[in-house]
Parts: sequence; structure tokens; C-alpha cells
Amino acid sequence: MNNIDYKDGKLYLLDQTLLPNEEKYIIPETKEDYYNAIKTLQVRGAPAIGIFAAYAMALIDYDKAALKSYLDSARPTAVNLSWATARMLKAYNEGKSLIDEAIAIHNEDKAMCRKISEYGLSLLHDGDGILTHCNAGALATSEYGTGLGPLLLGKEKGYSFKVYTDETRPLLQGARLTSYELEKAGIDVTLICDNMASIVMKQGKIDAVLVGADRIAANGDTANKIGTSGVAVLAKYYGVNFYVLAPYSTIDLNCESGRDIVIEEREADEIKKLYFEKPSALEETKCYNPAFDVTDSELITAIITDRGVHYPPFNFKEIL
Amino acid sequence: MNNIDYKDGKLYLLDQTLLPNEEKYIIPETKEDYYNAIKTLQVRGAPAIGIFAAYAMALIDYDKAALKSYLDSARPTAVNLSWATARMLKAYNEGKSLIDEAIAIHNEDKAMCRKISEYGLSLLHDGDGILTHCNAGALATSEYGTGLGPLLLGKEKGYSFKVYTDETRPLLQGARLTSYELEKAGIDVTLICDNMASIVMKQGKIDAVLVGADRIAANGDTANKIGTSGVAVLAKYYGVNFYVLAPYSTIDLNCESGRDIVIEEREADEIKKLYFEKPSALEETKCYNPAFDVTDSELITAIITDRGVHYPPFNFKEIL
Repeated sequence: MNNIDYKDGKLYLLDQTLLPNEEKYIIPETKEDYYNAIKTLQVRGAPAIGIFAAYAMALIDYDKAALKSYLDSARPTAVNLSWATARMLKAYNEGKSLIDEAIAIHNEDKAMCRKISEYGLSLLHDGDGILTHCNAGALATSEYGTGLGPLLLGKEKGYSFKVYTDETRPLLQGARLTSYELEKAGIDVTLICDNMASIVMKQGKIDAVLVGADRIAANGDTANKIGTSGVAVLAKYYGVNFYVLAPYSTIDLNCESGRDIVIEEREADEIKKLYFEKPSALEETKCYNPAFDVTDSELITAIITDRGVHYPPFNFKEIL
Repeated sequence: MNNIDYKDGKLYLLDQTLLPNEEKYIIPETKEDYYNAIKTLQVRGAPAIGIFAAYAMALIDYDKAALKSYLDSARPTAVNLSWATARMLKAYNEGKSLIDEAIAIHNEDKAMCRKISEYGLSLLHDGDGILTHCNAGALATSEYGTGLGPLLLGKEKGYSFKVYTDETRPLLQGARLTSYELEKAGIDVTLICDNMASIVMKQGKIDAVLVGADRIAANGDTANKIGTSGVAVLAKYYGVNFYVLAPYSTIDLNCESGRDIVIEEREADEIKKLYFEKPSALEETKCYNPAFDVTDSELITAIITDRGVHYPPFNFKEIL
């Protein structure tokens, strides 16, 4: 079963907040169930949220315009959420079958992930050592995912990879989600702390780094989970390929370069308290907790989208 | 009060295992108390362990040769421990005052830290942004420490630094010890996750990185806490000074280069379970947990010891 599955008129959602310690599927029934699932991060990852909300729009019997507003308010900054609910509302106003439209959104995401996975896999070789950062797998999207797509597709095709996964502090998406997904897929995965990326590259264990992207500027500068830029600097120093994998829609032509991308800062307690039995530092100690960083395009070997493999110099304004 | 203080015939030890949540001094009285304090890491850091064991040799009324063996067995790989107990046994056999010898060992360490701090401070400027990794402060040594020495001495002299401290996974010495020490000293400190070192350098917040060293090869390659080499690569890329601060005795001329330094691998559960409320990954997920890494000498701006500031190319065999 996938993280989001529509079967026999019901929607099944793998509750990501319980991973990796418990695998529990919930079956949302009321509009409040859907809202809370988005709000409390039982479903996370931009594409997955969009797909989930599309099914909500189809399955909940309620004024559709009001439902859209209600769902959108669960995570106001998630662009995919409002995009999916808007498309569903349009389909409703045009008298289309809503469940068919939701399934179409789901299938389009699967097809997009499949293309990224195939383009990405074309750059890898059987036996390669791979490093991942954060989670851009099926849990965040559908089926193959983006950053992890080449690994999951490669596994199906008989490739044997040796994957190292950064735990990705402070929210531990690499440990909790990526290592879980790869383990479940039967892929050889080894969890490391973020600060061990240097030693595994130095020891020659890594042939390629695969990461996702939250936003890509017109010149190729890429915003992704905090720590991505550091991994990219290491890859450059140690001569390791650094690949960014994301839907073509992640490219934001309104951003000329990474300087135009605003970095979200989050709470200190994510660093000092969340996940820990006891606080790791004094109450009065300040923390700086940026959620993302920007990787200079000069550090990126290639950007892989559903439209193909893009090599530097990146100039997405011209190739559109 | 310092982490180790001898007052009125009693030895006071700040229990490091309770930091930063509780500040408790223990007063060891039996030889078992001393043994357990070393074994359970109530005292840690090579110089601090040596000083502590020296006081044990002076204060415990027991066969001194047997006591040496007993204390040494608490942490068999700690070179400073057996060095200090051997020096104390020799003093005993020569009929010297043992408490005077222990105080001498303690004072020599303070003098060494003071010299490193002064040489280190000569490279910094008022207002500098500083990044630290792991803990090479007073808690690991005495008084000023090595890596943190210039910051503590600078504070006394009226310098104002803005310090960023890597939390230093998996054992969190940066969060638990370094941020605690700097906070207590009234120094402006901000805790970050290890993977945020890149963004703070990129944002121009860091003028110099200060780290300690566990072992320095004849060519300057430096073994230190895992993650140090990654910080050094980032510093090189972003044009930030990278300083290693350690006693001259840390230089091991038997090591031609970093290739001769064996890296200790530790338990998976330090990554997945220790400090966490729930495991961060599946039970079956492998972890790779090297305790140290080696920083290439080409990445080091200068190595600061109690003998002065050493610049590249490092050739410690010739300058002896």
C-alpha cells in the first residue's frame, strides 16, 4: 500500500507522525479529519498534501468553495494545497467527476515522479554509493518520489545501491522517513549523522548525492532542506556528483537567483527539545533554526526534472 | 568554582553527565567513587581525567601501585590517565608530597591552556563571529580550555564575540557542554545544528572557526570530533579562517599523516536512541558512527599550541 491509497470508495493515509515506530493507516471521513491530517503533518510533502486535499474535495459532501477555503487554511503556505483544491473546485464548477479529477491529479504526480526517476537513474550505475539528505521520497509525493525515485526504480530494475542517509536535524526526516522508506524497499541503507557526510565522501563511499528541492531559481540556485548547501560544498571538494531532483514546476522564474529566496526561520525548541528526553541546552541559550538553505548553482552537477536532465550553466528562462 | 577544584582537603567535581540540566558537584571519597566518576564520564576530556586521577592518587590511602592499575582500568584508552597516574606513582616512590604533585599537574595544565588562549586570541578581533564544533573548553581541561580558551580569555579582556556552536551529533557535546560553558561565561552564544554551519558561513556571520584536536600528525593532518573535517571544507569554500587549538603534546610524530590515524567506530544506538524519547529509525536500520574524522592539513589556517602559532606547510618533525 502507498502512503495515500484510494480503494473501494475510501481513502487510506499512512500517518507520518508515527513513523518509523508505528505504521498506522487512518481513514479520514469528516472534513475535520482531513483538515487535521494536514494540520498535524500526518500527511506532509507538497505533492502529497495536494493529492490528499484533492481526494478530500471529491469525497466530502459539503459546499465545495467553503471546503476549499477550509482545507487551504490548514497549511496556508503550502502552494500545492491551494493549487489542488482550486483545480478540484474548477472541475466541480465544470460538472466533471470529482473522484476522476482527484485520481487524475494523483496519477499525474506518479507519472511526474516516474519520469524524474528514469532521468535520474540514467545518471547512476549499479553498485553506486549514494548519499541522501532529508526526505524527497514516496512519503512526500507518490509512488517513487523525486530525490529517492532513482533508487526505488533502480531497485525494481535490479540495481544494487549502497545508500547513506543523513539524519537531517532538527526534524530528523532522513532518519524517520528516508531510512524507513529505503529499508522497507529492501535497499541497503546506512543512517549517519549530518556531520558524517564529510567522512563517508572522503573514504570514497559516495558516487553521487541525491536531494530534492523546495524552490529552484532561474539561474539554478536551489533552496532545499537546511544542510543541503553544506553537502553540496563537500561534494564539490571531494569530487562527488551532486544531483537535484524535483518537478519542473519547482523552478520559480520570478527568482533570478538564490538571493531572492527568503529563508523561513523556525522555533528554537525544535533544536533544543523536540525529540529529546531532556533539553540539550540551557533554557536561556539562543538557537538559530533556518528551515532551508540555498545551494549555489555552481555546486550542482545537474538538475533533474520531469522534462529531462539539465546541466550548467542553468538558465531556465531561456530553455522554457 | 571550576570543574575540578581542590579545597580544604577535599576534591570537588562538577558532574558532567547531568549538564546542562543540573549543576551538581560530587565529592569523591573512596577509590570506587573516583573509578566510577571516570568510568561513567562524570569527568571527561583527556586533561581533566588526568588531573582528576592525579588527585585520586594523592588523596586515597591505598597501595599506590594497585591504585594506579585500578584507576587506569576505568578508561584503558585514555593516555592522559595513565600518564598522570604514572607520574604520581613516580613521585610517591621518590618520596615527594603527592598533593603537591597533583596540584602541580593541575597548574601545568592551567598554564598550558593559558598560553594556547593567548596565542589564539592574538589571531582574533573584537566583534568577530566564531564557530565552534564539539567541546574543547574548561570542562575538558582546566580553567580556559583549548578551543574555547581564546573566547574565555577574550571575554575577560573585554572582547565581544558572537559565537555559533554546532550541537555536535551524536553526543551533543556542543549543545550540552560548549553552549553551557559560554552561556555561563556571559559570552553571546547561539546554538545551531551541525548542518547549519554552511548557512551561517555563507551569510558572512563567521570570521573564524575554533576547534580542538585529539591527535595531530607530523604533517598537520588533525583528528578531532566527527564533523570537524566537514566544517574545515566549508571554511575553505567560504574563505573563513580555520584554527586548531591543542597542547603541543597532541602532535604525534609517529603519525606521518592522517592516513596513520585509526578512527574509532561507536555503537549505532548513539545515533538512533541515545537522548531521544523514541528511536529515530527502525531497529534493523544500520548506522555508521565514527567518533572522529581527520581534517587535511591543507584546510587548516593555523595550528595553535602552547608553543605558539604554527602556519602551513606544517612539518612538526623539523621544528621540534
